[in-house]
Amino acid sequence: MVSTYRLRTDGNRAFDITDEISAAVAASGVREGIAVVSLPHTTASVGIISFPDPLGLIDVMDEVARLVPTRIDFKHQHDTPQDAAGHIKSTIIGTTMSLIVSAGTLLMGHSQKVYFMEHDGPRQRQFHVQVVGR
Amino acid sequence: MVSTYRLRTDGNRAFDITDEISAAVAASGVREGIAVVSLPHTTASVGIISFPDPLGLIDVMDEVARLVPTRIDFKHQHDTPQDAAGHIKSTIIGTTMSLIVSAGTLLMGHSQKVYFMEHDGPRQRQFHVQVVGR
Amino acid sequence: MVSTYRLRTDGNRAFDITDEISAAVAASGVREGIAVVSLPHTTASVGIISFPDPLGLIDVMDEVARLVPTRIDFKHQHDTPQDAAGHIKSTIIGTTMSLIVSAGTLLMGHSQKVYFMEHDGPRQRQFHVQVVGR
Repeated sequence: MVSTYRLRTDGNRAFDITDEISAAVAASGVREGIAVVSLPHTTASVGIISFPDPLGLIDVMDEVARLVPTRIDFKHQHDTPQDAAGHIKSTIIGTTMSLIVSAGTLLMGHSQKVYFMEHDGPRQRQFHVQVVGR
Repeated sequence: MVSTYRLRTDGNRAFDITDEISAAVAASGVREGIAVVSLPHTTASVGIISFPDPLGLIDVMDEVARLVPTRIDFKHQHDTPQDAAGHIKSTIIGTTMSLIVSAGTLLMGHSQKVYFMEHDGPRQRQFHVQVVGR
Repeated sequence: MVSTYRLRTDGNRAFDITDEISAAVAASGVREGIAVVSLPHTTASVGIISFPDPLGLIDVMDEVARLVPTRIDFKHQHDTPQDAAGHIKSTIIGTTMSLIVSAGTLLMGHSQKVYFMEHDGPRQRQFHVQVVGR
């Protein structure tokens, strides 16, 4: 029932995954319900961002990096500073999201798309979509 | 099945939408399940905030504005700086939220209410509520 | 149908609640669906954090405290400054979370665990888990 999708991130930016989520909704056959997107990672997050201006996507990623800077004084020292900062961004923004399914499709605003936000790329990644309803 | 509500925001503050969500839950007839609130906007967000002290609502909005200041150096220049900052606040806090429905009503804490957080008002806005369960 | 769990927080840190959520999923009998975790509090939050390095948990809590410092100039003055700051952290990170249930268990990454993040402890706390699906 769960749909799983893979992607290769080429760096720390936002990747549009709306089409994959829409495909999972269509495959589920659910007309009225809820879709949950979940990333099994701890240095990435899922967010809805305004898509018409691609520069706005860069602003979001830049601002998240400004709020939680990559630096060398984290207690977590097993991995790189980018990884340590990524864990924090991932928790604050979140790795799961609920979306409304109505009339068999995602109910979203005309400027909204769902993005896989990479905070420790490049990496091989994946995400899951589960749909419930009827 | 989806309930849609409209509101007119008079500025950048938090608007209590708990009653509308409760009405959508009641209308659904679901006794045990989940309600998802979703905003179709990219410069607003949905959050649970402590309501007994109205000054606390101002603190939350002020702090979000302090963390993501409205300024003129965003790459996104199609719209106002308030709009550019609003996109980022919207993504970080989020435009969707899942709530538990139990015994036919929202299961929430005695100090919790759900708020539509406006980051680029005044504007004509809306939000959707979908309920699943039985 | 809702499972409720209690915990006593001994201070402002992250408490692993993954086992309790897994128990609620098992008790529900749901094989394919969604679990929603909800905290009825306004000075705590729920987050997924990387667990292999316990120092990383401290980093997340420290960083959240750096972003929203406990200070005396909040408008909310009914309670302690720690409480006022906690309200803001709670709203930004969130008090609810959706998780995917598949094959009768939580579908999560190998480094992910779900944490109750205490921002105003020590306190007596609780959280709820609702599961929908089939």
